[in-house]
Amino acid sequence: MKFNPGDVYNEVFVVADEVYHGFTQLFKDRNPLHVDHSFAREKGFDGVVMYGNILNGFLSFFIGESLPEKNVIIHSQEIQYKNAVYLNDRLDFKAVVTGVYESVNAVEFKYEFRNSGSKVVAKGKFQIGILP
Amino acid sequence: MKFNPGDVYNEVFVVADEVYHGFTQLFKDRNPLHVDHSFAREKGFDGVVMYGNILNGFLSFFIGESLPEKNVIIHSQEIQYKNAVYLNDRLDFKAVVTGVYESVNAVEFKYEFRNSGSKVVAKGKFQIGILP
Repeated sequence: MKFNPGDVYNEVFVVADEVYHGFTQLFKDRNPLHVDHSFAREKGFDGVVMYGNILNGFLSFFIGESLPEKNVIIHSQEIQYKNAVYLNDRLDFKAVVTGVYESVNAVEFKYEFRNSGSKVVAKGKFQIGILP
Repeated sequence: MKFNPGDVYNEVFVVADEVYHGFTQLFKDRNPLHVDHSFAREKGFDGVVMYGNILNGFLSFFIGESLPEKNVIIHSQEIQYKNAVYLNDRLDFKAVVTGVYESVNAVEFKYEFRNSGSKVVAKGKFQIGILP
């Protein structure tokens, strides 16, 4: 097992224009909060709010590509959205191993995304399995 | 409030080629389970496994576009992956309102995705807020 409790991983993700527009095109979510600047401002935001599920796409990359073990599958994910993410936000991602369950080949992580103002924009946990 | 406990919503989503390839391009997750057919088969799957977070993209569409209220934001999501999803799978999605919290303008849902063999491939819950 390549994971130990307390192991920390860091990544940086940018919600670039192509990620935002690519997500809109891919999943066809044109809710006004995500595409209508004046609607979003009327609701008290600084501009259109990025899709929360872009962060789940970043998690997919992290789990599939950044871990020292490629032989993995996701069992479950949780995410809580704490603050709005805006276009071009640079997000510092940090994940910590919180549990290693060798008997069932599973590893649990806690994670958070922070924006450049050091505000937590989202946090949660996920569990992966190591494929036999 | 346009939601009542027990309200049921249904959608159909297809993990079409453009969704699969679009997700790979967007989030750059080229983990072998998702892109290498012989690796996936060696691991006991019928072919490359679709990204679980494609289902979270479908959830984004459902919440942003299918609900009777457009004035919403996601507070939190949970997903448990139960069975592999394959290319071109047609997924029946069902969501049920499990809680309406008028004092904080929040609504909680349980949901599941089933494949054409009626197997639950993923399930979970999410909470949305109604924007003031």
